[in-house]
Amino acid sequence: MNLNPPVPLSWIAEFTGAKLIGDPAYLMTGINEIHMVRAGDLTFVDHPKYYDKALHSAATVILINKEVEAPAGKHLLLSDNPFRDYNKLTLHFSPFVPATASIAPSASIGEGTVIQPGAFIGNGVKIGRNCLIHAQVSIYDRVELGDGVVIHSGTVIGSDAFYFKKLPGGYTKMHSCGNVIIEDNVEIGAGCTIDRGVSGDTVIGEGTKMDNQVHIGHDTVVGKRCLFAAQVGIAGVARIEDDVILWGQVGVNKDLVIGKGAVVYAQSGVASSIEGGKVYFGSPVQEARDKMKELVYVKRLRELFKEA
Amino acid sequence: MNLNPPVPLSWIAEFTGAKLIGDPAYLMTGINEIHMVRAGDLTFVDHPKYYDKALHSAATVILINKEVEAPAGKHLLLSDNPFRDYNKLTLHFSPFVPATASIAPSASIGEGTVIQPGAFIGNGVKIGRNCLIHAQVSIYDRVELGDGVVIHSGTVIGSDAFYFKKLPGGYTKMHSCGNVIIEDNVEIGAGCTIDRGVSGDTVIGEGTKMDNQVHIGHDTVVGKRCLFAAQVGIAGVARIEDDVILWGQVGVNKDLVIGKGAVVYAQSGVASSIEGGKVYFGSPVQEARDKMKELVYVKRLRELFKEA
Amino acid sequence: MNLNPPVPLSWIAEFTGAKLIGDPAYLMTGINEIHMVRAGDLTFVDHPKYYDKALHSAATVILINKEVEAPAGKHLLLSDNPFRDYNKLTLHFSPFVPATASIAPSASIGEGTVIQPGAFIGNGVKIGRNCLIHAQVSIYDRVELGDGVVIHSGTVIGSDAFYFKKLPGGYTKMHSCGNVIIEDNVEIGAGCTIDRGVSGDTVIGEGTKMDNQVHIGHDTVVGKRCLFAAQVGIAGVARIEDDVILWGQVGVNKDLVIGKGAVVYAQSGVASSIEGGKVYFGSPVQEARDKMKELVYVKRLRELFKEA
Repeated sequence: MNLNPPVPLSWIAEFTGAKLIGDPAYLMTGINEIHMVRAGDLTFVDHPKYYDKALHSAATVILINKEVEAPAGKHLLLSDNPFRDYNKLTLHFSPFVPATASIAPSASIGEGTVIQPGAFIGNGVKIGRNCLIHAQVSIYDRVELGDGVVIHSGTVIGSDAFYFKKLPGGYTKMHSCGNVIIEDNVEIGAGCTIDRGVSGDTVIGEGTKMDNQVHIGHDTVVGKRCLFAAQVGIAGVARIEDDVILWGQVGVNKDLVIGKGAVVYAQSGVASSIEGGKVYFGSPVQEARDKMKELVYVKRLRELFKEA
Repeated sequence: MNLNPPVPLSWIAEFTGAKLIGDPAYLMTGINEIHMVRAGDLTFVDHPKYYDKALHSAATVILINKEVEAPAGKHLLLSDNPFRDYNKLTLHFSPFVPATASIAPSASIGEGTVIQPGAFIGNGVKIGRNCLIHAQVSIYDRVELGDGVVIHSGTVIGSDAFYFKKLPGGYTKMHSCGNVIIEDNVEIGAGCTIDRGVSGDTVIGEGTKMDNQVHIGHDTVVGKRCLFAAQVGIAGVARIEDDVILWGQVGVNKDLVIGKGAVVYAQSGVASSIEGGKVYFGSPVQEARDKMKELVYVKRLRELFKEA
Repeated sequence: MNLNPPVPLSWIAEFTGAKLIGDPAYLMTGINEIHMVRAGDLTFVDHPKYYDKALHSAATVILINKEVEAPAGKHLLLSDNPFRDYNKLTLHFSPFVPATASIAPSASIGEGTVIQPGAFIGNGVKIGRNCLIHAQVSIYDRVELGDGVVIHSGTVIGSDAFYFKKLPGGYTKMHSCGNVIIEDNVEIGAGCTIDRGVSGDTVIGEGTKMDNQVHIGHDTVVGKRCLFAAQVGIAGVARIEDDVILWGQVGVNKDLVIGKGAVVYAQSGVASSIEGGKVYFGSPVQEARDKMKELVYVKRLRELFKEA
């Protein structure tokens, strides 16, 4: 999330109780977890395995549970529990505010847009022109829709990321302070769910069309003119480039890239990044022609076992 | 869709700007895309590959982008963009009308039927007697339900077909002017989605029961007494005959037939038509006993590779 | 379901018209189908194959369609149609009562709990403290939520079991008279569906977290601190022990146990019980390392068929 106006490190140190090793006058411009950091951001790290990654990331401020030497140009915040303090910060700057009406007075809705009865539009939502939001749609706070967007009934946009940290007593939730951005001329079917980013934004690119019951995880960025058939599920932090076609019930793992123009056949599972411009099938996916050959070999297995 | 009363071709030609080669006094009785055409219908074709199919289909009026000889008894409408003109016609005769209330005044609801709070019932919807429509159900315009139908919460009936045409600038939507017909004593679980037909009707046959999160694509016709377990997905224009059982998470491709009484095991994928009266498994499906044998062979592969 | 206060057998016999072979003064304390019976319960049996099982179950009262000798301490109710009479009883003691408001006056909602606009809370629902129920959630009658529970939009809790009996004319529904119990600190994503028990309770254990579009069937008991990723589906009467992790799109069959701490990779199918503490993959599942080897062998099949 961006901080606008920026926030002095001295305030952050006092608010969290962390010990500042750096310049109290430095003005932080964002808070992001490690996948999303940019210069000016605060990020956190609480596991020795990731100290180096965090310290040498683009982040300028590192909330950390070990006193280390700060790399040049970085500021440290020492804490006994960086995760707790990070959540405290994101909750402060992006609190949940209960709704006072089905359509929040602070929502902005463009000319020509139709909101059907029973839709929920949260605080600070921005909807462009000539959109059609069907009955029973839920749009959580601050989500942004472009022009000409159609959202079918039962679809939920901006629900929290599925992002929990295991502690000895059970799971603790990472507060989702990111957003969802739906670009122009996107159509989303009925019963879909699109989670907001944990700290960055989940984005659905211009002209992309989704069938019913599609799930898009947090911080996933979908390109332009993609087609997702019914019951596709994409875990978090995936990057789906332009013109990708996913057929029904395809599952996509987190933290990967599907290259431009890739086509994935129904019920396939994309476990890691795949190149664009090719056709895939299987769980886990292979190039479709290889998978097809494999299926033929498997059917011929009885020959090898000398059984007719 | 049917046109009632029928419409003279002269009006169609003037409204679309297409050049009529045929009888201006001819009375058109329907508009349907090529999968659904009957005598009296207008259909469209814009790709040379399908000219013959359209010209020799049951349709009486063909909206086409090439001057060809009309087969006997057919009328042609010449257009530089048949798809655009077809959509213009279906939108004219089946326009989207924003709702003015959660339960449209034009909806007809039979005696003994209970509509729970928060359900949405669109314009012109017909619901039979002794139905139970749970909270947060969305029933789009003109959908028809028989008697004794139960629809659980969050289910959406009559959402648009997932049907887009790729043009150089991206996807353009085919307007859905078909309907959904739910016959007597159907029960539909929570969180299901049933799309309306593009030009024909999506039908759910008498006594069929669906579990939660089932997706039924446009123009699919489901027979009587079928059972679909949770998270089944059926793409468009499928014909599922009577007494078919699909277990959980089964996926069904478009444009195919599943024969009467077929049983398909969980997580299977039905890629093309399958005969009735048999049991299937796998993705893509085979007869279950063949698939089971195959699974045994695959487990024994280590023998062939000389590894214990 | 429990009967509180208990009901004399004489009343049951008169209400159903069944012939009592036993003590008319006996006080029945519950009605449950055969999977769930305890001492004091009435259960039913109508198929010779299951007579013995029912007669020697924990149930004290057996509604049966054959005159047999009652085991010691059991009472019989003779009926020509035990299924019909069983349903008549459960409907009498657990009738569907149409809602009069989106939030039933009989619901109890704890301090600090936020109900967003458009949520439906049925008759007699109990919600603990500091819960957050998002817009468009449907909570059917009598469901119970602990403290600190979060339910995201579009989720449905307490819908009917998918449980039908095939009769010559089609399927007849078993009335669901069980409940759903959600324990403390559970978080349930958007678009999930959790069915109530047919006669027992569906339970989601403390601290369990579910992503979006998860389906949980009737009478399933989920342990503490489980994690279910998006689009997981669990059929009825499963027992998922503590600390189980199911990744995206996993399907789980009915009537089985997943042992404590088991991890099941994405798109797998759990067909029968699996031990805890292990990692699984495949449809049907094997231990993941075995499945991985198998996948390597399958990829090498071309060697065996002498094709490069």
